[in-house]
Amino acid sequence: MAGDPDVAIERVASLESAGPGDIAFLSQAKYRPLLHATRAAALILPRGERDATPIPRILCDDPYVYFARVSALLNPPAAFEPGVHASAVIEAGARIAGSSHVGPGCHVGRNAELGENVCVEAGSAIGDEVRIGEGSRLYPCVVIYPRCVIGKRAIVHSGAVIGADGFGMAPHEGRWIKIPQVGRVVIGDDVEVGAGTTIDRGTLDDTVIEDGVKLDNQIQIGHNVRVGAHTAMAGCVGVAGSARIGRHCTFGGAAMVLGHLEIADDVHVSAGSLVTKSIPQAGTYTGVFPIQAGREWRRTAALLKNIDKLEARVRMLERIIAELREKE
Amino acid sequence: MAGDPDVAIERVASLESAGPGDIAFLSQAKYRPLLHATRAAALILPRGERDATPIPRILCDDPYVYFARVSALLNPPAAFEPGVHASAVIEAGARIAGSSHVGPGCHVGRNAELGENVCVEAGSAIGDEVRIGEGSRLYPCVVIYPRCVIGKRAIVHSGAVIGADGFGMAPHEGRWIKIPQVGRVVIGDDVEVGAGTTIDRGTLDDTVIEDGVKLDNQIQIGHNVRVGAHTAMAGCVGVAGSARIGRHCTFGGAAMVLGHLEIADDVHVSAGSLVTKSIPQAGTYTGVFPIQAGREWRRTAALLKNIDKLEARVRMLERIIAELREKE
Amino acid sequence: MAGDPDVAIERVASLESAGPGDIAFLSQAKYRPLLHATRAAALILPRGERDATPIPRILCDDPYVYFARVSALLNPPAAFEPGVHASAVIEAGARIAGSSHVGPGCHVGRNAELGENVCVEAGSAIGDEVRIGEGSRLYPCVVIYPRCVIGKRAIVHSGAVIGADGFGMAPHEGRWIKIPQVGRVVIGDDVEVGAGTTIDRGTLDDTVIEDGVKLDNQIQIGHNVRVGAHTAMAGCVGVAGSARIGRHCTFGGAAMVLGHLEIADDVHVSAGSLVTKSIPQAGTYTGVFPIQAGREWRRTAALLKNIDKLEARVRMLERIIAELREKE
Repeated sequence: MAGDPDVAIERVASLESAGPGDIAFLSQAKYRPLLHATRAAALILPRGERDATPIPRILCDDPYVYFARVSALLNPPAAFEPGVHASAVIEAGARIAGSSHVGPGCHVGRNAELGENVCVEAGSAIGDEVRIGEGSRLYPCVVIYPRCVIGKRAIVHSGAVIGADGFGMAPHEGRWIKIPQVGRVVIGDDVEVGAGTTIDRGTLDDTVIEDGVKLDNQIQIGHNVRVGAHTAMAGCVGVAGSARIGRHCTFGGAAMVLGHLEIADDVHVSAGSLVTKSIPQAGTYTGVFPIQAGREWRRTAALLKNIDKLEARVRMLERIIAELREKE
Repeated sequence: MAGDPDVAIERVASLESAGPGDIAFLSQAKYRPLLHATRAAALILPRGERDATPIPRILCDDPYVYFARVSALLNPPAAFEPGVHASAVIEAGARIAGSSHVGPGCHVGRNAELGENVCVEAGSAIGDEVRIGEGSRLYPCVVIYPRCVIGKRAIVHSGAVIGADGFGMAPHEGRWIKIPQVGRVVIGDDVEVGAGTTIDRGTLDDTVIEDGVKLDNQIQIGHNVRVGAHTAMAGCVGVAGSARIGRHCTFGGAAMVLGHLEIADDVHVSAGSLVTKSIPQAGTYTGVFPIQAGREWRRTAALLKNIDKLEARVRMLERIIAELREKE
Repeated sequence: MAGDPDVAIERVASLESAGPGDIAFLSQAKYRPLLHATRAAALILPRGERDATPIPRILCDDPYVYFARVSALLNPPAAFEPGVHASAVIEAGARIAGSSHVGPGCHVGRNAELGENVCVEAGSAIGDEVRIGEGSRLYPCVVIYPRCVIGKRAIVHSGAVIGADGFGMAPHEGRWIKIPQVGRVVIGDDVEVGAGTTIDRGTLDDTVIEDGVKLDNQIQIGHNVRVGAHTAMAGCVGVAGSARIGRHCTFGGAAMVLGHLEIADDVHVSAGSLVTKSIPQAGTYTGVFPIQAGREWRRTAALLKNIDKLEARVRMLERIIAELREKE
């Protein structure tokens, strides 16, 4: 800490928009020039930046993590009132802890169990025999299909659908015969599921999302997938059925993983990349077509499509040169 | 059939997780080694595997199809009680068959028609004049816009939206003028629509999904599209407006089809591929950038982006060699 | 205008499906042959096509825009009854204009404000302190998180989620620490948001969608993004956090924009293209792998993956030829 220790902080803000009562942070050197103009009342800085400003400042190893904690302190999740709203419909055998909240228009199925301090917001549908661990929050219009299990302190955003049928069908005489999807989705503790994300139930065994996994919006997780602990996926990622993803992996936006693949721990897949085979080794993997202005792109695409002809021309040259050298 | 014919079966299970009372199946030779360790009470096997195990077994041509049927027998869809829940809101003129179920908090619009044995689960919204054929099931929080038609035995998963406006706008002086979308979505019999999938209504004519089409989760079908009978699409596929897709096609996850294209019957598009022109011939089509580890990828990308320069170098070599040969 | 001016028009239709009472339009020369067979009662044609048909016709500069206006006249949005449905739940302090409609099962949070002629359809959830401008329409099952602002004349389709938490987390000792997302989503006037589209709230500052922006279905907009006025995005587009998109841009289906990029005004990104760096200049940009039939594709992919080897072969040839020439 350096500077006036008595400054009062009420809010977190960005360096650019901060004003009196606000604390801001600097985590990347490129934003350093903003320090001079900021009107923040206090700052969170890397230790090396002690003398970068006279503004009251906290010095720490990882300003971003420190900021996350200050912000969590100043911005607790919205409070909720314990109790079941009069318009919610609760089926027989459902057990809802007294400290939990079930909002207007929700439906809670037979024998479902909601632990302590669970908050289910308006219009959500919780299937029969679903279990939701203590401290979890479901935003409005979430659907959990029957028998799925959600751990403690989950955050599930609106429009998420957990436990719909996996896409399993046997082809027979030109038609598709549906394979009943009788597994569940089992989600560990401290998992976040983004808006509009869908996680399908397993065919026979379960689809499993381990502790600490963070899923952004509009992600699709197929049946029987396992996502290892503390893996994070950005928006629009898709994981096809039976893929097994390691722990501590990250997936950039719209990355896709084909079915039945195995991805090791600590694998990082770049945005927009399609994983077409198993990745047994940690590391960063990428495969995206570089974007180009219209004219250049048309040329690149034409040449790429005919890369076999280019290769044939090189092969021909190699042959001619070999002949020329022989004659020497 | 071979082995003890009196064994009692209660559940289906995978070879690995099966125990007493379970029946499992073998459809791919690669899982054959699991036969020795399985604790299944009975098995479904290809005819050729009659002697592969002493476990009571059913021998058939297509174990996967046989398994699908056994599983459907043992796992019928969840039963529902006929009747309209007291909290559902039914508008004037709606006709709901006596055997059908409308769950808590649903809204059924004016003159909508639900056939026999239709089940609409909690929180779904059925627009005015919608028609839903007998035996169809809508999971919680499905939205069907006015005037759309859904055939018999449909399965529509949570978060699906059928009949929203197509994306039709005329550009005029830097702004977009909305084109009213007055067509419908018309869905045939035996169609499944996955969670979060959206099918837009037609602009003037209808968007049509023919019999037996299977759509996985988070698929987007644009206005005026026609999807031919028994075509199946995996998760995250997108089909732009006015495309016409043939019958018995399959689309891998996240495949995309541009607007106004025509795809023949029996076309198979690989996951992650973008269809940029019509495909008049049956077959398998692919176009995806191979994924590589970071270092290799950067080299590939740089060379690809400059493939025109590589081609120019080859052309130059061809010229020089031609000169050298002339001199000989 | 040409032909009988007293023909009565009741509906718009396509050239192919039009019949008595219908008006159709021709905007592209390629559909000209349909003029001869159409049974439309009237037509909207480019000025140059005055003599192309004897059918009563309106001649104008831009038939598509003219058609849009005629269609809007003949197909006004569905009317709604002012008032709050008895089953809707309205929290303390919410202000709902008398001309507005709140449908069955909706939830409107504390201190929310709905302007005149707003229509919120069944099952939607409006968070605390949300503001929605006059003339806006929310279809069933839309979720607006607390404090978000929606301008006038918005159209928001079912399943859209506006204001869910952005994907902000600080990595710390192998886990993710959530960064509270305390900004809002602020949407201008005349914006359309498609079914299943998600727009995340900002971390500290706001996510901003400017006037006249049109978003198709299943689009994902990350936190702190700004989308410039009158930009249009087709289905399945994704924009990662903190990207700034210019005005009057268009994005083809499934185009993706990485985080923190800046895209100039009047940039057009093709369907399926991944924008990996900022685009400071107007123009059309593309990057997609051309689709090919199975056999050709396998060859292309193999050569592409080994393009560095091809380049090495060309380099080797260049070296040999240089030697050969020196010897001459």
